[in-house]
Amino acid sequence: MSDPYGVRPGEVSAPSPEDFDAGLYFIGRIRTPWTRREDCPKNARESDALCTIEVDERWAAALSGVETCTHLIVLYWMNQARRDLVFQVPAHYGTGRGTFALRSPVRPNPIALSVVHLLGVQGTSLSVCGLDCLDNTPLLDLKPYFASTDAAPEARVGWHAEQKRKG
Amino acid sequence: MSDPYGVRPGEVSAPSPEDFDAGLYFIGRIRTPWTRREDCPKNARESDALCTIEVDERWAAALSGVETCTHLIVLYWMNQARRDLVFQVPAHYGTGRGTFALRSPVRPNPIALSVVHLLGVQGTSLSVCGLDCLDNTPLLDLKPYFASTDAAPEARVGWHAEQKRKG
Repeated sequence: MSDPYGVRPGEVSAPSPEDFDAGLYFIGRIRTPWTRREDCPKNARESDALCTIEVDERWAAALSGVETCTHLIVLYWMNQARRDLVFQVPAHYGTGRGTFALRSPVRPNPIALSVVHLLGVQGTSLSVCGLDCLDNTPLLDLKPYFASTDAAPEARVGWHAEQKRKG
Repeated sequence: MSDPYGVRPGEVSAPSPEDFDAGLYFIGRIRTPWTRREDCPKNARESDALCTIEVDERWAAALSGVETCTHLIVLYWMNQARRDLVFQVPAHYGTGRGTFALRSPVRPNPIALSVVHLLGVQGTSLSVCGLDCLDNTPLLDLKPYFASTDAAPEARVGWHAEQKRKG
């Protein structure tokens, strides 16, 4: 298991399309304490590590008003993840699931999403809690978190609840 | 105001970088009742319109287990939005804000995010509530919504609360 992005028994690959349909700009970098994948926290909510989002100067004016938000949605690019697996067997679950039922970084478009607590803004640097990605991960977007549309505390992931129940 | 993506007084544009840093695949389409931007609901949570997410057959196996989720995070591509505005004056607010303090489709990477209620899965079609985008919008990703990490009901967008207070 030396390659964390290899294919495990039972996993299914689908050939990627030949061409891209749209392009992304990396708009900054995320600085975290973790330089190896195995050191990243399994659940960002359980980590209180302070991380820094460094937005490129080009987008400085886009941060106006962000400081009034308690929480942000951060979109970032899992640039080390393969994109062709449609059915995966995560090591810590041992059961196969479809990619769209998982939060694995391995997906056709490896865009990751974290809800972070915003602690402060200094120029184009944001201090946040709630990330679990590798140091230097490319940033794609920041959005204000609106509880009215983004919070669904009643939501349930059935397969996950069942797995926990079984222990 | 015939061009909904024009530049309003007070808005600020930043030149886009010359090259893209990564590429996206469109993995399906979102079918909604709205074919004109002015018909889309202002707040998806206030809409109970039934929408359909059509995932391309190529990714069919990736849907295994999705049917056990009550809520999904949907990422999609706002393919009609310009990408160069860093400071915007939304017509319904009248006050300028930075792009990253807004949920406007106009942003460097026009990736939109909605939390939807999953009503059913039929093959590669998902029936959902909670979308507000145009018919035929390109789909980028589907993720299971985990209340433990994605729900922050206490979150507050300061500028928005202040605006509502003032009426």
